[in-house]
Amino acid sequence: MSVIANLAIFPMDKGVELSEYVARVLRVIRGSGLPHQLGSMGTCIEGEYDDVMGLVRRCFLELQQDCDRVYMTVAVDYRAHGRERMLGKVRSVEQELDGAAG
Amino acid sequence: MSVIANLAIFPMDKGVELSEYVARVLRVIRGSGLPHQLGSMGTCIEGEYDDVMGLVRRCFLELQQDCDRVYMTVAVDYRAHGRERMLGKVRSVEQELDGAAG
Amino acid sequence: MSVIANLAIFPMDKGVELSEYVARVLRVIRGSGLPHQLGSMGTCIEGEYDDVMGLVRRCFLELQQDCDRVYMTVAVDYRAHGRERMLGKVRSVEQELDGAAG
Amino acid sequence: MSVIANLAIFPMDKGVELSEYVARVLRVIRGSGLPHQLGSMGTCIEGEYDDVMGLVRRCFLELQQDCDRVYMTVAVDYRAHGRERMLGKVRSVEQELDGAAG
Repeated sequence: MSVIANLAIFPMDKGVELSEYVARVLRVIRGSGLPHQLGSMGTCIEGEYDDVMGLVRRCFLELQQDCDRVYMTVAVDYRAHGRERMLGKVRSVEQELDGAAG
Repeated sequence: MSVIANLAIFPMDKGVELSEYVARVLRVIRGSGLPHQLGSMGTCIEGEYDDVMGLVRRCFLELQQDCDRVYMTVAVDYRAHGRERMLGKVRSVEQELDGAAG
Repeated sequence: MSVIANLAIFPMDKGVELSEYVARVLRVIRGSGLPHQLGSMGTCIEGEYDDVMGLVRRCFLELQQDCDRVYMTVAVDYRAHGRERMLGKVRSVEQELDGAAG
Repeated sequence: MSVIANLAIFPMDKGVELSEYVARVLRVIRGSGLPHQLGSMGTCIEGEYDDVMGLVRRCFLELQQDCDRVYMTVAVDYRAHGRERMLGKVRSVEQELDGAAG
């Protein structure tokens, strides 16, 4: 029941500069040991549904402790029998593109 | 630690007509007893973080049992000391609009 | 080429209380004459792709003029030959639920 | 008025395997010349609001021509005076993390 999730989370009451908060969240993600990719609009995480959503919860609690308003979006893509898809999805698209060009 | 969440979830492998699947998800939501509002692009649910995300998990499992690919987005808005905000948010915006008109 | 869009937009640099900004956005939406539904996590808008996205642009510009950071999500559902789906989607789900109960 | 957008777009009526469609969208994005990063849950694009949203429109039209249902989410982060933020956001978070570790 492996999924890929894209997590975007930030405080709404801390002004324009948020890298400190994003870094705190990323530290929680790194500590999880789950495969992940930091992007400019969120972090992709791959794993079993409960492991990924348990990690999302810890990220939320990390900000909730000292932020009075927090916004979070989680997009989840589940595919039956999917395994190590985070890199695989990007690769198969690149193969499509190369194939079309060749 | 009350939140409002907007849940959009659907199978990606069942073709164009999806109301059967949306209905199954909505039945799970109704069964939860949590306050919710069905919209045309998702269902808003209000409650404690763990109650809302526990319900989101049951909605996911409902589709995952017979769908080979499922897409889900959850947007969460947390506000400290927030209570019964689902209707309140809409009301306070309407008051703003009426105030400006008056 | 009719679509339904769910628009969520808010400043990130104006603190916890945002109903004034949401009201300004909603005034722009109302002024458009497009069918819409205000929800607690966004506003659904229905229309031709270019009309809906033109309106989304005006909402963005409304906040961008005096906000130093703005976050916006737009979810779009397009269905060929779809017409007046905003209410129709909710109705067909309710019929599914009633049918199952009867 | 530079923004970063994360675009996720796919047909809902073409079954489980979608890399062909994602590749077609990515070809449109590459053709635009705008800075972008392909991720496993969407592609980040940076540029002026109208350039980015004009590109999003072309991606939508690419799929709409032969798909009967299309789902799309666009998340937009605008920051006044922001420039070349797509890499910068990731870098400033990594600096925060390194600083804390050092």
